[in-house]
Amino acid sequence: MKAKPEKYLAITGGVGGAKLCLGFSHLLDADQVSFVVNTGDDFEHLGLHISPDLDTLTYTLAGLSNPELGWGRQGESWNFIAALDALGGDTWFNLGDADLATHVVRTQMLKTGASLTDVTASLTRKLGIDHQVLPVSDDPVRTIVHTQLGPLAFQHYFVRERCEPAVRGFEFDGSGSAKLSAQLKAVLADPDLAGVVICPSNPFVSIDPMLAVPAFTQALRALEVPIVAVSPIVGGEAIKGPTAKMMQELSVPRSAFAVAEHYTDLIDGFIMDQQDAALSNSVAGLNIETIVAQTVMVTLADRIDLARTAIDFLRRLRGGG
Amino acid sequence: MKAKPEKYLAITGGVGGAKLCLGFSHLLDADQVSFVVNTGDDFEHLGLHISPDLDTLTYTLAGLSNPELGWGRQGESWNFIAALDALGGDTWFNLGDADLATHVVRTQMLKTGASLTDVTASLTRKLGIDHQVLPVSDDPVRTIVHTQLGPLAFQHYFVRERCEPAVRGFEFDGSGSAKLSAQLKAVLADPDLAGVVICPSNPFVSIDPMLAVPAFTQALRALEVPIVAVSPIVGGEAIKGPTAKMMQELSVPRSAFAVAEHYTDLIDGFIMDQQDAALSNSVAGLNIETIVAQTVMVTLADRIDLARTAIDFLRRLRGGG
Repeated sequence: MKAKPEKYLAITGGVGGAKLCLGFSHLLDADQVSFVVNTGDDFEHLGLHISPDLDTLTYTLAGLSNPELGWGRQGESWNFIAALDALGGDTWFNLGDADLATHVVRTQMLKTGASLTDVTASLTRKLGIDHQVLPVSDDPVRTIVHTQLGPLAFQHYFVRERCEPAVRGFEFDGSGSAKLSAQLKAVLADPDLAGVVICPSNPFVSIDPMLAVPAFTQALRALEVPIVAVSPIVGGEAIKGPTAKMMQELSVPRSAFAVAEHYTDLIDGFIMDQQDAALSNSVAGLNIETIVAQTVMVTLADRIDLARTAIDFLRRLRGGG
Repeated sequence: MKAKPEKYLAITGGVGGAKLCLGFSHLLDADQVSFVVNTGDDFEHLGLHISPDLDTLTYTLAGLSNPELGWGRQGESWNFIAALDALGGDTWFNLGDADLATHVVRTQMLKTGASLTDVTASLTRKLGIDHQVLPVSDDPVRTIVHTQLGPLAFQHYFVRERCEPAVRGFEFDGSGSAKLSAQLKAVLADPDLAGVVICPSNPFVSIDPMLAVPAFTQALRALEVPIVAVSPIVGGEAIKGPTAKMMQELSVPRSAFAVAEHYTDLIDGFIMDQQDAALSNSVAGLNIETIVAQTVMVTLADRIDLARTAIDFLRRLRGGG
């Protein structure tokens, strides 16, 4: 009898998470790992439905991402946005010419009744991605950032205001009533599911919007397999994005320990960077198993190594390794 | 007392008409000539409202048109459509990256309740056009081409099927109930209006969709100033587009005379190319004054010369010149 495959679930937001997911996609076959992606950043702009985190992961897995920008597509051109500017259109959210095709197709498919899950499956397949990429919900979840300037829709905070206004808190519109898709339910209920990884994404605006969906968090808590998180904070700083700035503004200590504490009710294990080894004992004090690894992913080999570290850690936590 | 300006109205479709309109725009001030444009080619595609004839005229007047293609913008890039193709989207209607901005802005403005007339005014102003460009109606008029393959939406006939199916007739969906905008009514009711020019556009699919709007034709017939048409057929051939092919398929003689006959109930004067001088007597037999001119417009000077010829002809028909 052939051994059943161990299956894994990775929960991810933007660029940092996508790097680790790329590692998983190289390490594990398409039937061994699925990706659940934040939709709290999604918004309607210029009549288009834009899903930044889904696109970041899709372009990353397809080998199309733009490493210089950290978003969008490589070899991109910008004639649409220049023409839009001349016509007096809204240009605060930059859209590349090729990237636009993704938003146009998604918007059209959604209008004709396809779910975001179906749209994402179609787009990823067309770009040659075999692994399953799943939005956390087909129902809208929209992150609102409460700031010194008042509440801001996520992209207004993140792009238009360049994360400058000090953050006071967050709200995830729609999360309370958002349902899980049949596809995500199937992944969560799969008897071969062997572990879950929370990728090194921003806990507040990449992971929390997903955890704010009650059915998702309940399903994670009900699992009999371990959940581990990878710290997005290394040496007190975020590799990318406003995580560290947000922690300071929220009066949370800017450390990997604070990230572990943030997830304390959910995770069994925590992976932090070797630079933060001194914090291991404190995290262990939260009753969370901790390992250190090289979490700064520069090369593809780094991504695959960290993915392997996470899988090995999950095996050990299951008592199988 | 300052003399009141004579004002003119030019009725136009695609490329050929836009050439003459460019001539008018150089010859006459913004308060002296307005352009009424066919919307029978308009369609919804990829969730966007596309108005090909309005765009052809707008790009032509703004000096942005692509003379090689005969549509779209000069210096255009095509990364959107290439990416759309890779995603399995509909690519039979080619859309340039900069051109897309026009469609996105138009679609958005229409969605928020602006009329097509308002949208067109905004787009033309942003591109530095002072002259008034007016869609024939803010209500949808949609040309259906009856062909050997059955009825085809205009762009399906024109672009997707490359005008190949033989034409049996035309229908202009919505024209019967289409109203005139306040702006177009004002132009038609202006006491200074001194004449109307039907540009050398396809009579069947550029001009007839407009004449199918009863309020428009009634207003034209009620005018006490002359109307002249410029033949789009020169030496039995169309300068561009399927006019001559359509005439053959409709068993209409392929000649400038047949164009004059087509407009016989409406026009007072007819301008045909010097190559067709031999037909002058036949057209005169229709009780239509006829002049010959160089109607093939190669240079900007040709466009301005033909515009001047049309204005001089209108003056003579009014008995003023």
